[in-house]
Formats: sequence, structure tokens, C-alpha cells
Amino acid sequence: MQTFQFYNPTRIVFGPGTVPHLSTLVPAEARVLVHFGGASAEKTGTLAEVRAALAGRHVEEFGGIEPNPSYETLIRAVELIRRDGLDFLLAVGGGSVIDGTKFVAAAVPYVGDPWEIMLSRGAKVSAALPFGTVLTLPATGSEMNDGAVISRRESGDKLVFSSPLVFPRFSILDPAKTVTLPPRQVANGIADSFVHIVEQYLTYPVDGRVQDRFAEGLLQTLIEIAPQALAVPDDLDTRANLMWTATLALNGLIGAGVPQDWATHMIGHELTARFGIDHARTLSIVLPSLLSVQREAKREKLLRYAERVWHLTEGDEDHRIEAAIAATRAFFEGLGIKTRLSDYGIERGEIEAILAQLKAHGMTKLGERRAITLEVSRAILEGAW
Amino acid sequence: MQTFQFYNPTRIVFGPGTVPHLSTLVPAEARVLVHFGGASAEKTGTLAEVRAALAGRHVEEFGGIEPNPSYETLIRAVELIRRDGLDFLLAVGGGSVIDGTKFVAAAVPYVGDPWEIMLSRGAKVSAALPFGTVLTLPATGSEMNDGAVISRRESGDKLVFSSPLVFPRFSILDPAKTVTLPPRQVANGIADSFVHIVEQYLTYPVDGRVQDRFAEGLLQTLIEIAPQALAVPDDLDTRANLMWTATLALNGLIGAGVPQDWATHMIGHELTARFGIDHARTLSIVLPSLLSVQREAKREKLLRYAERVWHLTEGDEDHRIEAAIAATRAFFEGLGIKTRLSDYGIERGEIEAILAQLKAHGMTKLGERRAITLEVSRAILEGAW
Repeated sequence: MQTFQFYNPTRIVFGPGTVPHLSTLVPAEARVLVHFGGASAEKTGTLAEVRAALAGRHVEEFGGIEPNPSYETLIRAVELIRRDGLDFLLAVGGGSVIDGTKFVAAAVPYVGDPWEIMLSRGAKVSAALPFGTVLTLPATGSEMNDGAVISRRESGDKLVFSSPLVFPRFSILDPAKTVTLPPRQVANGIADSFVHIVEQYLTYPVDGRVQDRFAEGLLQTLIEIAPQALAVPDDLDTRANLMWTATLALNGLIGAGVPQDWATHMIGHELTARFGIDHARTLSIVLPSLLSVQREAKREKLLRYAERVWHLTEGDEDHRIEAAIAATRAFFEGLGIKTRLSDYGIERGEIEAILAQLKAHGMTKLGERRAITLEVSRAILEGAW
Repeated sequence: MQTFQFYNPTRIVFGPGTVPHLSTLVPAEARVLVHFGGASAEKTGTLAEVRAALAGRHVEEFGGIEPNPSYETLIRAVELIRRDGLDFLLAVGGGSVIDGTKFVAAAVPYVGDPWEIMLSRGAKVSAALPFGTVLTLPATGSEMNDGAVISRRESGDKLVFSSPLVFPRFSILDPAKTVTLPPRQVANGIADSFVHIVEQYLTYPVDGRVQDRFAEGLLQTLIEIAPQALAVPDDLDTRANLMWTATLALNGLIGAGVPQDWATHMIGHELTARFGIDHARTLSIVLPSLLSVQREAKREKLLRYAERVWHLTEGDEDHRIEAAIAATRAFFEGLGIKTRLSDYGIERGEIEAILAQLKAHGMTKLGERRAITLEVSRAILEGAW
């Protein structure tokens, strides 16, 4: 096992009907700004529940935080907060709203150009407004970690920052809030969580036995519940398992003390940037091909994955690895997610342009051993076509 | 899954050679009291490392915190801290030293008789000194939770308290610090952790899939590593896995959202109180018999345990349950821990006296459904004889 630090102070309040806990979780004297995304927060009644729980406090609202939240939108929230002297944020939504709230929380007290927060990857954050979240979409894990992805439309940048100062103070995880989600978002959330787990698991062995078992347990849970989660939206037990799995997939626990390989995310980001493909779908395109191309580097863990997650024990090693990768692809396809670039109408000739983007963004040494060069990425993209 | 809250702000610093991190983890201006137990902290060099890391700070030391830490000892630390105006505690040792430190941390600012903290089970704690730990013995999980067991020799009490104010600020988990432990303590630590996990897992199903998988993963890890942990003390990879497993066994995670059954601990406490048997050994005596007596109440989870933890899939259900309970007993015996009251020279006639103790302590409705009455405890003790 590798040396590590693990720290996660976010309070999780989990279960159907837990939104009213806001009345005690938000400080009584707080001047609150509620962040949300589109119209669904209003239509589903979640905002009404939030308003009821915060009755009697000074509460303002800021809607319109978009998927892949933008600096341009968020900076308007920063101005509003400074103008009105607000001091507590509440994100109501999924990963985009929560990520955006993290940036706003850090930007409000920042002295200087807030974009420096992103350029420093969070290193320059020395203070942040406190905030909580009401999660409505299980997927990104942002509700229990200290990272965020922010885009800047003007420059076309999409950057990541993290800081221990932007852990949510609390996150309310109410599985009943997920029953009205469109099936496409549920499928995307399952795929996103699955890939988060794999990226902290399928590297090389360091005798991190607990981390392996936990990762395998989360993957097995997703595989077990995915059909029911899609077919029966109001099965709250299943949605509860999905929600808790998605949170634990990226709260720092399963990645503590083991190598990680975020190449699938990095390559996937370029596909979203260039073609506007949903984030989770880009991961489902890249991962099977990446595992195939990296099969020697990941050999031991792929064999473990085949046996423990997919129960593949027949045939020789290469056959079992092949079968595990095929099962991974079939899992995504079973969610209704196409797994090949060609399925999205992308020409093979585009691969060079994607590689140029990777190069421009410095993504030339990816993976757990920094061995995924542009040439390896080319093979991955060709295999994904 | 049941509604739950999960909150755990302890920072874990994990790995060989991490004790020097104290120099940044302990605030520079802190006036520190280092708590420890017996002579081993000095002999092994751990105290010397701690002193080196804290060089330049005001540091005092308080040794002699005993196994099953006593109010009588701890109150002397409280007096010392108040007299010398100390403001940060550092526990160097195992669960007893850490538990004792939690009590001292809460007692120092307490207005009134500090024993009220125990009588209120922690409800009366409204402030506590900050403290960190350097763990030397993987077993109790106290390094990453907010509970403590404190004894009072004068009255014969052994009480539990918890408060979110006594989570350690940080815990240093250095597996190299465990290599000098006597084998008996290592075996006890493995058994203690195993039972902690079982008590949060073997109840009745509530579709807590992640919790089940995590509990099973921790149990499988203990089963895999126990022989090596005992046979090769300086195998740091194995000791690392043991240390992290023991911490995760009782940090609130696997018990969040699922029923729990702490009857084994409650009955075991009486055996320690009356006969002085090591805590972990009392658990190893009680658990197999409890599972046998409670086999109908725990039927579904016992079958899952048999299949997933012990890979028992042959024969009918009763046979598989029987085999899983036998495997549990054999696991403890394999650690060198005897699992029957008669092995410890206890007469069968003592059972009535143990039951009288349980009654006197109000332990008349134990278990996940409060269905372990004194009559059921009698059957458990008779089965354990």
C-alpha cells in the first residue's frame, strides 16, 4: 500500500424525506444564496421544500447554472453575493451545480482575479464561504469531495481545481429526489460512477486489499442494480443504493493508498469539448479501448477484475481479460450508451484533431505510470472508433 | 436502507515513517500533553520520535494509562492540564490510551463533576480540547471514531460515551509501529476488528448493498491476512492492511444505514469485568454461540455470510449456516484464541452470576431487535460454555 492522507469532513444526511433537516444544518443567522440549475428544481418541488425548510432566514436564489458550469455564469453569483453580503451557499442539483458552488465559494473572498483559482488548480485558495448541498442526481461524487471542474466559454478552457476548503459542510442525499430524473441522466450517472471506480482500481497491484475489495463491492453493486434503477424509477431502495454508491465512488476512500489512472477522463474531456458528447458517454467510449490497449500494464488487476467483479474463471488469462473488457462494454451498452466513436457520427479522420487537443492541453503522459503518450492515446482512440 | 447521518472529520495520515508529520499536524503554538500507556512506547523508540517531531514546542508527558483506562488515572491528567494551561493532547498507543484521551479532552473544559460525561453517555459534552493520535495497536478503531469506554475502579463501572467533539483531529497510522507488538495483542486486535464488523453486518437485510459488500470485504481481508500477520511481524504490507482494516471496521461507515447488534460486546464486557479475560477473547467466546442461538433471526444474513465470506455453497441452508458458524469459531481458534468459557476455567455454575450482572446493568433487551432477553443470553452463555 502507498503512503496516503485521507480527510473528508462532509456530513452526509441520507434518506427519503431528509430535506427538512436544512432547518438545523444551515446556521440560523446565515444569509443564504440557493444555487440551482434549470427548471427541474422548481418543477419537482425540491426548491419549494428548500424554501420551506429555510423559512425565516434571509434567502436569495441564483438559477441557471448550466451543465459544465461556466465561469461567465458563476462570476455573476460572486457579484451578487458580494453586493448583498451573503455568507452561506446551498447547492440544489447535481454535480454541475455543486462544482459551480465550490468555485463561487472560493471566489467570493478571493483577492485578485478569481480565474487564478483555476490556473493554480486550487493552490491559491486560502478561504471559502461555507456551503451545503441537496443532491438530486447521483453521478459525480462532488457532494462529498473537494474537487470541481469549471469551464470558461470565452477561452474554451475546462479546468479542474481542488481545495480542502471546499468540502461541502453537509450534503443531503434523498433518493426520492432522483425518481423524476430522465433515464438518460440516470444511465449517465451509473456509467460515470462505474468509471470513477475503475480509474482508482484498474492499475497495478500494491497489496491494497481493502481498497480493492471496496472498489469491487461498488462495481458489483452498480452491476446488480443498474437494470432495476433504469426500469423502475420509484424503487427507492435501488435508488438509495445507486446514490450511496455514486458518492463513495469518488469521496477519496477507495483511491487512498493506491495508484490511479485518470486517462479515460482526460481523453473523454476532449471528446466533450470537441463534439459535445455527454461526459459519461465519452468515458464509456474510451474505457473499453483503453483497457484493451493497456492490457499488459494492467494485467494483474484485469485478471482480478475478471474474477471478482465478473466471475470469469474459465479459459486462459488472455481469454478472461478479453471477456472482462467485453463485459465492461456490454454493461455500458446495456445502459443504452453507445461505446464507439463511429456510433456518434465521428469520422476516423477526427482522431488526429483530438490528439492535437490532448497535446495542446499537455496530456501527453497519462495513466498510473505516465506511460500513455500521444501514440498510446492514438491507439486508444483508434480502438474506440 | 435505513435513514442515516455519516460524519467523520478525522484526518488519517497513513504509512511507514509518518510520525514526523506531527511537526505540521500539531499547531505550532500548542502546549501539548503526550498521553501514553506502559513502557513499550519508550522502549520501541516511538516516544523519542514523537519528541523529535515536536521539538521546540511546550510538551509535557503523562504515562501510565492502563488497559481499560480508569477514571482514577485520567482525572490526574485533567488536573495536570488545568494546572499547566495545556491545550492540545496527543495519544500515543492503542485504543485504551486513545479512549482515555477522549475522556480527558472532554473533562478539562467540563464545568461540574466530569463523571457526569459518562453518566450522560456524552450528551453533556459541549466542548473538548483538540487532540491527535499516533496509533500503535490496530484493534479498537478508536483512532477514527468519537466513542470511548472508561472504567471507574471505585464503583466497578465500565461505561461508554460518545460525542462528535471527541473525534481525533488526526491519527497517524504507521504500520511499522506494530511490528514489536506481542502476538497475543495482534491476535486480539484481529478478533476485535472481526467482531466489530460482524456486529454491523450479521443482523437482518435492509438492502444496504454497499454496506454489505464493504463489511464482507473487510472480513475477507482479515481472513486472508491473519496467518501472515501473526507469522511474519515485519511484513509491513500485511500490517498495513491489518491497520487500515481495523480502522475502517469501526469508523461509522459500514454501520451507516443498517441495523446493528452489539450484544456480543455487552455480554463480553461482563466476562472481562468478572473474570479479567481479554476483551477480544470474550468476544470470541460469545459470538459463535450467539450466532448459533440467533440463527433464525439472522437467517438471511447468515446465508449471505456463508456464501460471500466463507464461500460455502454446498448443502442445504441449515448446513451452510452451521458451517459458517463453525468457520467463525475456527478462525478465532486459528488466532490462538480459545472460544469456550470452559477453556478459561470458568464453571458452568458461574453463568447465573453473569446473568445477574447483565440484569444489574440493564442489559435485558439486546440485539438488533432488542430480542436478546436474559433468557436468550442464558442460552448463549450455556452454548459458549
